[in-house]
Amino acid sequence: MGNTFGHLFRVTTFGESHGPAVGAVIDGCPPRLALAEADLQAELDRRRPGQSALTTQRREADRAELLSGVFEGLTLSTPIAVLVRNTDAKPQDYEEVRRAYRPSHADYTYQRKYGIRAWIGGGRASARETVGRVAAGAIAQKLLRERCGTEVLSYVARVQTIEAEVDHARLDRVAIETTPTRCPDPQAAERMIERIGAARKDGDSLGGVVQTVVRGVPPGLGEPVFDKLEADLGKALLSLPACKGFEIGSGFGGTLLTGSTHNDPFYAEGGRIRTRTNHSGGVQGGISNGEQIVVRAAFKPTATILREQETVDVDGNPTTIKGRGRHDPCVLPRAVPLVDAMVALVLADHYLLQAAPAAVLQSAQETET
Amino acid sequence: MGNTFGHLFRVTTFGESHGPAVGAVIDGCPPRLALAEADLQAELDRRRPGQSALTTQRREADRAELLSGVFEGLTLSTPIAVLVRNTDAKPQDYEEVRRAYRPSHADYTYQRKYGIRAWIGGGRASARETVGRVAAGAIAQKLLRERCGTEVLSYVARVQTIEAEVDHARLDRVAIETTPTRCPDPQAAERMIERIGAARKDGDSLGGVVQTVVRGVPPGLGEPVFDKLEADLGKALLSLPACKGFEIGSGFGGTLLTGSTHNDPFYAEGGRIRTRTNHSGGVQGGISNGEQIVVRAAFKPTATILREQETVDVDGNPTTIKGRGRHDPCVLPRAVPLVDAMVALVLADHYLLQAAPAAVLQSAQETET
Amino acid sequence: MGNTFGHLFRVTTFGESHGPAVGAVIDGCPPRLALAEADLQAELDRRRPGQSALTTQRREADRAELLSGVFEGLTLSTPIAVLVRNTDAKPQDYEEVRRAYRPSHADYTYQRKYGIRAWIGGGRASARETVGRVAAGAIAQKLLRERCGTEVLSYVARVQTIEAEVDHARLDRVAIETTPTRCPDPQAAERMIERIGAARKDGDSLGGVVQTVVRGVPPGLGEPVFDKLEADLGKALLSLPACKGFEIGSGFGGTLLTGSTHNDPFYAEGGRIRTRTNHSGGVQGGISNGEQIVVRAAFKPTATILREQETVDVDGNPTTIKGRGRHDPCVLPRAVPLVDAMVALVLADHYLLQAAPAAVLQSAQETET
Amino acid sequence: MGNTFGHLFRVTTFGESHGPAVGAVIDGCPPRLALAEADLQAELDRRRPGQSALTTQRREADRAELLSGVFEGLTLSTPIAVLVRNTDAKPQDYEEVRRAYRPSHADYTYQRKYGIRAWIGGGRASARETVGRVAAGAIAQKLLRERCGTEVLSYVARVQTIEAEVDHARLDRVAIETTPTRCPDPQAAERMIERIGAARKDGDSLGGVVQTVVRGVPPGLGEPVFDKLEADLGKALLSLPACKGFEIGSGFGGTLLTGSTHNDPFYAEGGRIRTRTNHSGGVQGGISNGEQIVVRAAFKPTATILREQETVDVDGNPTTIKGRGRHDPCVLPRAVPLVDAMVALVLADHYLLQAAPAAVLQSAQETET
Repeated sequence: MGNTFGHLFRVTTFGESHGPAVGAVIDGCPPRLALAEADLQAELDRRRPGQSALTTQRREADRAELLSGVFEGLTLSTPIAVLVRNTDAKPQDYEEVRRAYRPSHADYTYQRKYGIRAWIGGGRASARETVGRVAAGAIAQKLLRERCGTEVLSYVARVQTIEAEVDHARLDRVAIETTPTRCPDPQAAERMIERIGAARKDGDSLGGVVQTVVRGVPPGLGEPVFDKLEADLGKALLSLPACKGFEIGSGFGGTLLTGSTHNDPFYAEGGRIRTRTNHSGGVQGGISNGEQIVVRAAFKPTATILREQETVDVDGNPTTIKGRGRHDPCVLPRAVPLVDAMVALVLADHYLLQAAPAAVLQSAQETET
Repeated sequence: MGNTFGHLFRVTTFGESHGPAVGAVIDGCPPRLALAEADLQAELDRRRPGQSALTTQRREADRAELLSGVFEGLTLSTPIAVLVRNTDAKPQDYEEVRRAYRPSHADYTYQRKYGIRAWIGGGRASARETVGRVAAGAIAQKLLRERCGTEVLSYVARVQTIEAEVDHARLDRVAIETTPTRCPDPQAAERMIERIGAARKDGDSLGGVVQTVVRGVPPGLGEPVFDKLEADLGKALLSLPACKGFEIGSGFGGTLLTGSTHNDPFYAEGGRIRTRTNHSGGVQGGISNGEQIVVRAAFKPTATILREQETVDVDGNPTTIKGRGRHDPCVLPRAVPLVDAMVALVLADHYLLQAAPAAVLQSAQETET
Repeated sequence: MGNTFGHLFRVTTFGESHGPAVGAVIDGCPPRLALAEADLQAELDRRRPGQSALTTQRREADRAELLSGVFEGLTLSTPIAVLVRNTDAKPQDYEEVRRAYRPSHADYTYQRKYGIRAWIGGGRASARETVGRVAAGAIAQKLLRERCGTEVLSYVARVQTIEAEVDHARLDRVAIETTPTRCPDPQAAERMIERIGAARKDGDSLGGVVQTVVRGVPPGLGEPVFDKLEADLGKALLSLPACKGFEIGSGFGGTLLTGSTHNDPFYAEGGRIRTRTNHSGGVQGGISNGEQIVVRAAFKPTATILREQETVDVDGNPTTIKGRGRHDPCVLPRAVPLVDAMVALVLADHYLLQAAPAAVLQSAQETET
Repeated sequence: MGNTFGHLFRVTTFGESHGPAVGAVIDGCPPRLALAEADLQAELDRRRPGQSALTTQRREADRAELLSGVFEGLTLSTPIAVLVRNTDAKPQDYEEVRRAYRPSHADYTYQRKYGIRAWIGGGRASARETVGRVAAGAIAQKLLRERCGTEVLSYVARVQTIEAEVDHARLDRVAIETTPTRCPDPQAAERMIERIGAARKDGDSLGGVVQTVVRGVPPGLGEPVFDKLEADLGKALLSLPACKGFEIGSGFGGTLLTGSTHNDPFYAEGGRIRTRTNHSGGVQGGISNGEQIVVRAAFKPTATILREQETVDVDGNPTTIKGRGRHDPCVLPRAVPLVDAMVALVLADHYLLQAAPAAVLQSAQETET
């Protein structure tokens, strides 16, 4: 259970890292959205391993095949199934994992919960599962762009202690993709590259923070009281591998302010109601207010490191284990398209959720007048 | 939509702050749990306004009535409906809010989304909605305590810049309830009381952090890949009013470490597999590993302040507004029972979610042997 | 579990027959629908016991109280909680049931499943639970009438072997309510009254068929492949107490035709696409086609009879039991408002489900042109 | 929306009849069930077209590929994705359908709802979609057989007016598969073959009834009040293409009896509580009582007939259309494995739903004693 996300725009992912394939089924995409495999491929290529020296050297073509839900280039509003074959599987790299639990990985908890685990390469717990999310997120992003003018822009804001300075007014996808770090601050990016390289040489790993800015958000998204927009965004990002924290707007830092400095004063501008500051991060009372949505997600240092570590084997005996598989010394750059995908899935879902009562309300008001 | 939480242990809350009543319906509680109104009342009394000078002076008896689901003192496994009448409603305090949007409240977004809002006292967006959550959480806590030996302990870890030092080994409910701050560090508690008092005098407000430690967690809770335990915990806490951030285990701070210092080495102890450190916060790969679950939630400074603030009225004209209603200068102490409730709801839900396949697996293994 | 119905217009019912209260929480009602307690009362009065000699003599005022979700006479789109107190509880009538299982009732299965049951008057399995459904259905019917011009008309089509002849063109609520049978064919109604009276004298009971005609159905309701309109209608009616069968359109009788006589030819009329016959019952491929929806539900003879019956006691020993409580010798007349409610709940739900993608599609088409 | 079925054992199907593939993702299958492609193939072969002169001559190998969720021959409790490629697509057969709506098909309603349709061969509305259901149902049947000893046996009980006489005590899969009709009464089967052959010659089609008997049902399955076992069974079967009616136990016929003849007296036998008759069809109060579950589903005559029919084209102009594609003159024989699949999906789902509270209850009772 737990492999489906969303209420009306729903994605179900499937697949183990070294099984035949990974993929997703997306149910609830509205009809007549132009969609081709190239749309998915563009986002999958951003997620793909082996892009640079910063990331794992596993080589996967990650070719997305659209199996259903599209007819003559348009979505049918029937389920869209996406299939990506696994090709570069090297099970021999994982022989050791068959017997021993890797620290801070999911080996032990999966074995304990299910009495079985696909021990090769993490199986279902591998980040390879996110291929399906990214494919689904590509569709969500296209829907948001074409139907609401909404744009999701995630970037690496921090690697360990190296913090980027980013002017959100100038932020765009090009700036983000300029360096393999996906950090749009070139000075910080350079230092990040060095730091990550040093960690790789050390057989160690680093964590950091991905920040997301969403522009062109329609007001009215979010379903209080439990399916508040920030609650669903938080769940979405915290469901990503290695994510340990989530903030919206002022987040943890905002707790240092007082109400009088934290509150966002309203003003009117060109017929729109705006706020002068955006400590709220674009969401008030669980509902988007039309300002930019700003969220941050913390990603821990990659659990796989090329060092000897204390652990136990499947029989509970003490042993040691040393990572051998290909791995990312820092997941941040590759986490960016994952965050883009998850944020887009939440927004597309809430866009549909609010459309129904809004349409009913509007038709009622038209009848009244 | 969005007023139901949980998969198998499901709570639906209802009620506006100044309507006739608030409450909840809990569906999916297993049968034959001893349950009386007093069980709910104990938790509701912790949430109740007017407990101390630290909190709002609104006076509500908050008497919980059990309407269904209990027979001869035991749960029936049918829906448990809980009703709490609103009594101390003072709509005249809110006349100004009828016309103007309070900054960083939900007035504008509700009006924009629904074309209507219960403008008296925040209506559905008021923290009064959490009465239903706390009643449901009391049932969840009882279920966890009696069926799993699981104990949820939340406390105020920080008010603005005042950080508590707490030894988790000695933490218990008594220590938490010692002062009205719900901070078990007496020195910090005293400083918090002063700081909150000063903010009240200033007509201003403060935020902070609630930390939760869960003891006696069965391994195996959590449903990857989307309903990971930390994802559902994050959603639960981020759905609380004023919550802007969530962390599990090492959280944002953990991103400053390297993999070699962050990973939690496994060892065996008395037949149990344990970890030497707990940066994971008790969850690995989305599944509880049996260690303590440790989470933190950031609560912003209360939006209601007794100062003049810039805003717009419902017609979009500039105006100012000044809080007049009773309010909490700092929500942290009263947030503690809310966090207890939400954490317990997530754990009770996941306890049921894992029981089904576990029971099937176990009966299969018994058949095999 | 299982006490919530619907996807976007969701009703959760609660309450045991002899507990403090029964009721419902309705989540997802669109905003700004005029709603008062009188709207609910009108439908509850149709369901109420003690209406005529045909039905149980239990006397319940069945006063509906609106606890939330309505402000200044309009729905807020927040949860609408409805409460109805139980008053005329006579537990002494049920002493015998404490020890023995009534045949074809739910006593045994509840005890077996939950290890406990509210043995007084059937508890949760009593038809009294449907109070909450009828209240929710009243809201759904109002929404459908005012927002879509859709009217749900159920009536008693058969009591045992007495079949009504009804001209659907002339059918309306007045004709249905003319006699206490809720059969709009006066001749058949008279014979039904006699037959039911005879069964009552015999201490026996009768079953029959309720038929529903829905007029003014918008085309496009229904979500293939699993949430087809007929599938959700079937589930809705089969969830009613005593319902043993469901048909749409030609139903079981249609299996005697051939394709060439069963198919509904299309033709155009005034810009609308119509069908010449309606064997489809208003639904094709799981989606409404704009024709009248026609469904039928079979209700078994009431299980409570005033005769000695063979059974076992809670320890599994043979015994006999004889009904003593007040009961309906024929549930059909009172089943009519229940069927109205459930059909309306399904249609309101699917009306909202189709609105979201339809709104997105429409806004896309407007942009294109 | 609407392409997922089930609460804890969930199947999501995808695919259009003439797109690249059809298939399903099954989430929630418990771990360590032995599963191979051959298990799925056995059921898919029963559904496969071209099996006999009775069914459509479309030739599809219908090779099932397991893409995920199985490791070293055992289920992982992660999503099981099943893929079946479409091969024998003849779009040219459907040129006429591009322009005109086939009577009593889903062409018009899909076009009206979505503004687009995959017009070749019915697209998503084609019975080819059921490939995914049958694959999922094969897994559910295996789970039920191996974990509960539950066996689902569906057969053709009637073709048009030809009714089978079947002794349920002797019923088994072999008897059902003896003739291509899947009617275990050899005399009736022979007459059915003739009748279907005659209809084919006429270019016409026939309907009928599939009956299902489920043996070895654990008591306690079903979640009142909305997710009653019969309600979910009804929804499951009514979601099948061409299904127009559903009955459980005595069904519509039972409405002709009186309570005193319809009630099922309880008796004890070998420590089990049994009923002397089974008018309830194995379900009381929405919960299985341990007796055989008996349900019936009505399937209308196939809508595709090789005769000229009145209709309208996509612009609303009158025209005629004549079926040309390969088709089944009677869907009943091929409906049998679909009904088996859907019944098994419901039972597997409810088996898991009841396991969680049952396990909690049992562990509580063990602690008490």
